[in-house]
Amino acid sequence: MGSKRKICVVVTARPSYSRVKTALRAIDNHPSLELQLVVAGSALLGRYGNAVDYIENDGFKISEKVYNVLEGENPTSMAKTTGIGLMELANVFYNLQPDAVVTIADRFETIATSIAASYQNIPLIHIQGGEVTGNIDEKVRHANTKLADIHLVASDSARERVLRMGEHDEYVFNTGCPSIDLAADILNSPQLDFEPIEKYGGVGANVLANQDYLVVMQHPVTTEYGAARRDVEETLKAVHELGVPTFWFWPNVDAGADGTSTGIRSFREKHNLDNIRFFKNMAPQDFLRLLLNSKCLIGNSSVGIRECSFLGVPVVNIGTRQHGRDRGRNVKDVGYDSQLIKDAITSHLNNGQYEQEYIYGDGKSGERIAALLSNVELRFHKTITY
Amino acid sequence: MGSKRKICVVVTARPSYSRVKTALRAIDNHPSLELQLVVAGSALLGRYGNAVDYIENDGFKISEKVYNVLEGENPTSMAKTTGIGLMELANVFYNLQPDAVVTIADRFETIATSIAASYQNIPLIHIQGGEVTGNIDEKVRHANTKLADIHLVASDSARERVLRMGEHDEYVFNTGCPSIDLAADILNSPQLDFEPIEKYGGVGANVLANQDYLVVMQHPVTTEYGAARRDVEETLKAVHELGVPTFWFWPNVDAGADGTSTGIRSFREKHNLDNIRFFKNMAPQDFLRLLLNSKCLIGNSSVGIRECSFLGVPVVNIGTRQHGRDRGRNVKDVGYDSQLIKDAITSHLNNGQYEQEYIYGDGKSGERIAALLSNVELRFHKTITY
Amino acid sequence: MGSKRKICVVVTARPSYSRVKTALRAIDNHPSLELQLVVAGSALLGRYGNAVDYIENDGFKISEKVYNVLEGENPTSMAKTTGIGLMELANVFYNLQPDAVVTIADRFETIATSIAASYQNIPLIHIQGGEVTGNIDEKVRHANTKLADIHLVASDSARERVLRMGEHDEYVFNTGCPSIDLAADILNSPQLDFEPIEKYGGVGANVLANQDYLVVMQHPVTTEYGAARRDVEETLKAVHELGVPTFWFWPNVDAGADGTSTGIRSFREKHNLDNIRFFKNMAPQDFLRLLLNSKCLIGNSSVGIRECSFLGVPVVNIGTRQHGRDRGRNVKDVGYDSQLIKDAITSHLNNGQYEQEYIYGDGKSGERIAALLSNVELRFHKTITY
Amino acid sequence: MGSKRKICVVVTARPSYSRVKTALRAIDNHPSLELQLVVAGSALLGRYGNAVDYIENDGFKISEKVYNVLEGENPTSMAKTTGIGLMELANVFYNLQPDAVVTIADRFETIATSIAASYQNIPLIHIQGGEVTGNIDEKVRHANTKLADIHLVASDSARERVLRMGEHDEYVFNTGCPSIDLAADILNSPQLDFEPIEKYGGVGANVLANQDYLVVMQHPVTTEYGAARRDVEETLKAVHELGVPTFWFWPNVDAGADGTSTGIRSFREKHNLDNIRFFKNMAPQDFLRLLLNSKCLIGNSSVGIRECSFLGVPVVNIGTRQHGRDRGRNVKDVGYDSQLIKDAITSHLNNGQYEQEYIYGDGKSGERIAALLSNVELRFHKTITY
Repeated sequence: MGSKRKICVVVTARPSYSRVKTALRAIDNHPSLELQLVVAGSALLGRYGNAVDYIENDGFKISEKVYNVLEGENPTSMAKTTGIGLMELANVFYNLQPDAVVTIADRFETIATSIAASYQNIPLIHIQGGEVTGNIDEKVRHANTKLADIHLVASDSARERVLRMGEHDEYVFNTGCPSIDLAADILNSPQLDFEPIEKYGGVGANVLANQDYLVVMQHPVTTEYGAARRDVEETLKAVHELGVPTFWFWPNVDAGADGTSTGIRSFREKHNLDNIRFFKNMAPQDFLRLLLNSKCLIGNSSVGIRECSFLGVPVVNIGTRQHGRDRGRNVKDVGYDSQLIKDAITSHLNNGQYEQEYIYGDGKSGERIAALLSNVELRFHKTITY
Repeated sequence: MGSKRKICVVVTARPSYSRVKTALRAIDNHPSLELQLVVAGSALLGRYGNAVDYIENDGFKISEKVYNVLEGENPTSMAKTTGIGLMELANVFYNLQPDAVVTIADRFETIATSIAASYQNIPLIHIQGGEVTGNIDEKVRHANTKLADIHLVASDSARERVLRMGEHDEYVFNTGCPSIDLAADILNSPQLDFEPIEKYGGVGANVLANQDYLVVMQHPVTTEYGAARRDVEETLKAVHELGVPTFWFWPNVDAGADGTSTGIRSFREKHNLDNIRFFKNMAPQDFLRLLLNSKCLIGNSSVGIRECSFLGVPVVNIGTRQHGRDRGRNVKDVGYDSQLIKDAITSHLNNGQYEQEYIYGDGKSGERIAALLSNVELRFHKTITY
Repeated sequence: MGSKRKICVVVTARPSYSRVKTALRAIDNHPSLELQLVVAGSALLGRYGNAVDYIENDGFKISEKVYNVLEGENPTSMAKTTGIGLMELANVFYNLQPDAVVTIADRFETIATSIAASYQNIPLIHIQGGEVTGNIDEKVRHANTKLADIHLVASDSARERVLRMGEHDEYVFNTGCPSIDLAADILNSPQLDFEPIEKYGGVGANVLANQDYLVVMQHPVTTEYGAARRDVEETLKAVHELGVPTFWFWPNVDAGADGTSTGIRSFREKHNLDNIRFFKNMAPQDFLRLLLNSKCLIGNSSVGIRECSFLGVPVVNIGTRQHGRDRGRNVKDVGYDSQLIKDAITSHLNNGQYEQEYIYGDGKSGERIAALLSNVELRFHKTITY
Repeated sequence: MGSKRKICVVVTARPSYSRVKTALRAIDNHPSLELQLVVAGSALLGRYGNAVDYIENDGFKISEKVYNVLEGENPTSMAKTTGIGLMELANVFYNLQPDAVVTIADRFETIATSIAASYQNIPLIHIQGGEVTGNIDEKVRHANTKLADIHLVASDSARERVLRMGEHDEYVFNTGCPSIDLAADILNSPQLDFEPIEKYGGVGANVLANQDYLVVMQHPVTTEYGAARRDVEETLKAVHELGVPTFWFWPNVDAGADGTSTGIRSFREKHNLDNIRFFKNMAPQDFLRLLLNSKCLIGNSSVGIRECSFLGVPVVNIGTRQHGRDRGRNVKDVGYDSQLIKDAITSHLNNGQYEQEYIYGDGKSGERIAALLSNVELRFHKTITY
């Protein structure tokens, strides 16, 4: 009796998709839920990895595509991209009439989802609130929390933080991070079953995975716009000098993306990078298997903090991007300094893998989220608890 | 030596202007500050009282006008109005290059100011955070808090709340509410020096102020869209039946404004309202003097909670709009029920004026805010305190 | 065999709807056409007559509603309203995937329809091109012609003009104006079967239709922004001084609408207009019957030029708004001058009704348009003919 | 006596800038004109050649930069890019208050300039109207003509066409194309004074200019979206097989740009293109000198039609993009067919240079345009001439 709850999830970037994929699958499969998947922002764009193709290949039906990225890659265009997204998503929610909208984490454009839903009195569910990072992402994340009605967080400390911000105990759930589900799945067949260049092409040196190798994924830090180029050059220098075979992933879109990209391009022109292969993107399970079999992940991706703590992969975490996030013993934090980066990598190379830790989940988050969404009371009125 | 700090204040509605007027004056007069005044949203529109005219008559120079109100007055257009405002304000801040941006309180469109500033790494100052009201305004207000770097709050309990949300002690200041400054000023010459109809026209019965009279100001409550008409009819019934001379003010713009307005218009057509005169707007000092000399304010305006506690004017506060705000002994809270409203008015008519209370300030907030803005450290990086 | 052609018609204002209503009905009823009706702009707004209610009452299913009117009523907001409409309609056409899009006449926002369709390679059909008026409407109309692929014009001289602009003979059709269909229909039962005040309310004097009466409909002329108020005052003066019972219709939205409206409101406050009743709107057939039984139509509405030439109703056409349009013997053209207006009305009152003329159609345009749309070759490539 | 006329020119793409550069210079230098230069659209973006850098290097002061390119590169985003541009340019013109606005030629986003100006009653000057090309560009160009008040065309046949469209004889001027001014200037020192790879880098084979070489510039044709990739592959095949040293320029932004770019990238991966060097951009005078010293230009750029007829450079013009434009004896038109392209190139290689022709100007257009702008009557009312 009764129709399905319509759960509208807005995915705006490749890493956001990877993070919630198992939850999307579980929602899609749940007998009393209907998934309305909206793909927006850089998730639609070729030069940021065409997440939309992966989503469709994974068999998801996309309800709406929202093109809202204004070119320019400066702080003004970030604000306008959010404004355009807000206008478009207001239409999308009006048309789809969901019972609840899900906004993910803390990218700048996610607040457009939060506003479009909450201003239309649609219950808003925020995934991955309560974490600490210390730049514009943190402002966005906590603003999302204050606009949201229901909170699905990834760790105990995140839950504690959301509660302290004045949210109601009965609407804040530690579901763990669904990205860990994928990692848990990988552990069932851990061996690398493809050769990266063969499957993904990429550009640069002919790096093979049948040897010890590193992985790099470094994003620009948005409130330090302009320094992005200098930052990435330190990492390039370190990895170049070590000479260990390396798979390097381009950054996703943000103000400053061109800084990072230009830094990489110009470094490549000046140096013979015969140990580095550059990739735009990789299917999530392939990427996780590549990590699991690597000697070390370098950069500032949240994958290093979350999935790698679960997988026990050594991580050199650079700079402030992951500042304040709970982390496992596998992470060495360093500044933007090629020597420090080199030292940390070398130390990891000597140590090898770490023990598994369950800080961000136990591998069953997707199912847990779907179950919650099917029976949580959906409301859009709230008052701060103090 | 040294140039002035450029402080950009965005005013989006008539009541917001009234609230911060003395702060604007103090900023404008401060030797080390330059005021960049941006007028946007309904503050520019004739049918919401043309606040812009009052602003210019008060001698302020307007740096930019931003037309962003999308017609429709439904929740979808509220979201889009915010999106358009965000696109426009991104330009405005880019052009004006302020040292800090001030966003006021909690109207839905104020988050556009907050996003446009914070995404462009401009220090954001939020006035009137930390209060509690329980509808979409509260979500917006707290989201503004989490986007803002510096907080100027109006009461001790508001300050406590902002701190508990994780803001830093040294950036949260209880300045009192500048609206109280105007009220304090009024007390120096309290007598009503004009006849409302003569000065402001209005429509309806020929109500004179040289007798006992009431004042009504009732706004629609946005998350209860559609009920606005029914709500206002209870108040109309009560005031109509009491027969006491009454000055009634039209609501400001919001989703549902037409509900309230339609309610008033249709009630007028059906009943001979020979004790009510309707006004669109009044100069703030005239309005305060009208209140001070009235027997009672009825409705759900924040003026009843703030200025009237300072002035000692009896208030019948209807419904949930001011829920959770600190209030003085002068306020009687009632539901949307004509009998309860009538009883509360009658009781006030028998009691007369109340003692002054200083919950929302001492009458010197404007100067205090300007002084603070001239020497507070302007920053745009922050991390939650826990 | 084969599916229906999807014809998407965008209606942006009350008069546009009236004009094409019989064509919409014929498309809706045609066995090989599917009507996709999009209602946008002022057609959705209460203060411009809520055309959307009439559309729904007439039994049409609305595919999408597009709120795009930016408040402000100045030339800048006209441009932005068009920009917002363009963004929204781009989505609408992308979602509806019509086989052809129909844009109507020459209002400023109609070019948004034309661009959104033509840039997405959807064949664009322009109704009512080739006419001459001499202000911004004319620029918009001819730009629509140059963006359109197929032209359905209302008179022989309009067809000639479109051809001379370089359009292809085989894609320019004189269908007559569908507004004449309604007028033709009215002639079957010409008597006024309702009392205006009883059915439509309105405000002002108690004017009854069982006596000789006038009708006024005067719109602001957009490129003469600011003069709107002065213009309407001449008409008010003339009608007031004549003292003949009058039904007066408020203008539709445009830059300057507030000029006209303010002019009317302020004139009413200063004079006792005991012969004028003001209406916002009327069902088209009621309006035509009101005209048919009137002594004279005064103002600058295109109804005076089109429908009234067919009905033989005397018209005093004021100012430049209908400049250059083919007109019948029933039209007296005058300037903005109360004396000239009075003289023209008086002369008409003495003359009585005129002979029918068929300049703008024979009353079968709707059917003719639907038939054409069902079998015309739909293309979106064209080249000028010279 | 009297202040300068403010002439606002909106440049939205690299080739538009090249085309009008000498006119901009002449306006900037004219004693009674003030240049307000607005740079928008792809002219601001790195991946379309960063025209803005050239503009600033050339010493022009930029009044406003307008970021309006919505990512996506599909027909829907073209329409939305235009809508965003319209909203932004409405602000820009409101702020700059120019005496006249200049819109250039026929790119899809130029209509935003035309609407933003004409709706605000600013006299609109259209450069390069009256030409014939046969796709969406032609619709846009003629719509610009109908919105514009004054027309500065580049050839006698263009002037004739604008007049036939109903524009007034006294407002249509054949000034010639200012792009020819640059070409005329080049003839004063025709020798190639730089080595392309040394000065501009680029990617691909090591091609030197001290030998016989070809130049290729091929843009996607927007209404044939999707075919772009297949089209460019025919040209790649022809040039690859001929083996003559070649300088190849990437296309500018348009729906389909990715089709062309992907076509080039994928062809490069599959074939060893040892005779082709790819460039993003080149300073206009360098590009013209490179052309002048080349054996042949291949592709569909308007440079082949205009500048090359003046310079006498042999051209192989592919496909429909330049269809209907007056052309000189130097142009061989072919379809998208590698064999036809190869044959045409070979035939040119055997013939050598052609005689100069003056179809598009005599080299003094810039000065002529500035002189006209300084004394033409600026009006914004017009009526079609028939």
